[in-house]
Amino acid sequence: RMPGEAGTTIHFVTGNANKARELAEFFASNPVPFNITPTSLDLPEIQGDPEEIAMYKCSTAMEKLQAPVLVEDVCLGFNALHGLPGPYIKQFLQKLGHDGLNRMLKGFEDQGAVAMCTVAYCAGPGGTPVVVVGKTEGKIVPARGPSSFGWDPIFEPAGSALTYGEMTPAQKSPFSHRHKALKLLRDHLLAAAAAPEGQSST
Amino acid sequence: RMPGEAGTTIHFVTGNANKARELAEFFASNPVPFNITPTSLDLPEIQGDPEEIAMYKCSTAMEKLQAPVLVEDVCLGFNALHGLPGPYIKQFLQKLGHDGLNRMLKGFEDQGAVAMCTVAYCAGPGGTPVVVVGKTEGKIVPARGPSSFGWDPIFEPAGSALTYGEMTPAQKSPFSHRHKALKLLRDHLLAAAAAPEGQSST
Repeated sequence: RMPGEAGTTIHFVTGNANKARELAEFFASNPVPFNITPTSLDLPEIQGDPEEIAMYKCSTAMEKLQAPVLVEDVCLGFNALHGLPGPYIKQFLQKLGHDGLNRMLKGFEDQGAVAMCTVAYCAGPGGTPVVVVGKTEGKIVPARGPSSFGWDPIFEPAGSALTYGEMTPAQKSPFSHRHKALKLLRDHLLAAAAAPEGQSST
Repeated sequence: RMPGEAGTTIHFVTGNANKARELAEFFASNPVPFNITPTSLDLPEIQGDPEEIAMYKCSTAMEKLQAPVLVEDVCLGFNALHGLPGPYIKQFLQKLGHDGLNRMLKGFEDQGAVAMCTVAYCAGPGGTPVVVVGKTEGKIVPARGPSSFGWDPIFEPAGSALTYGEMTPAQKSPFSHRHKALKLLRDHLLAAAAAPEGQSST
């Protein structure tokens, strides 16, 4: 099959079971004519801005797999910290926990935060990576809800009385930064399936 | 010349003029039988712990230059943040400034911090990278002294009434995390010059 052609397998490269589950749930209710399959692969993540990080991860994943790949980078940026910890949120969460992340903001008035999902997709060797971004504004609050999925319990999206952690998957999806990015990706994949690369009728 | 042989040129890969100057000053008063020359090269920095970051930078620099290379990674870790921002301190400083870094610690009792310099050296293609670490304990204080060199004005080493920023180079050197690492590196280079790789008399 040609890159981008319907039916192709796309590797969603992640080591995180929760991300794989959210992605599978999304594509179950928003189908695309591709087989999107989670693939665990250990990749170096670079320092930088979210787009640079996702692009680098996408190219290194494609070099290794020589196949269509999909990667994502998730950021939680605090407004008072000008978008940081941002891409480093995973390490901050691991070291500081929910309470420590709240305490980092004690010295600031602004408790606002932006959850951001940057998805990079490449249709295969020689293909040009596509980057889409989903963003959700909200604020950092003391943890509420089960602690099973990262920083979900301390992020309360704007327009909600619940944290991500307190929401059911159905309640979370209209707010979800990941769903916003995946919708944009889906638009791209549907367009690509309709007119795959190298298949244009010129 | 053989890798590690006296007289070899070693590329100190950095984009930071202040770091290049401190290194030159160190080797001016602590000579080694090598030509250590600053080389500006744009390298991706990975996320991770300081040793991983320095090792990765060292291997990518050597792949590009195919010559002996020396790289360093500097961390400023806050004890209350379990060593973070650590390797990301440069981005935190750029976005938050001296005042913002102090404010991040407002919610914590412990204002302690550790300045750390991780140096990785590789004698050339096929050589095994050597990693040395210099650490200086101290605390984060409101900025004092000229702002010309990064976070120097907000770091007051233990046993000093002055911040790094307030010190002359001569005052700073006995405290300096970079000097501690460079001393260890110098020990290694002197030993290597005395018995270069591939020149052992077995």
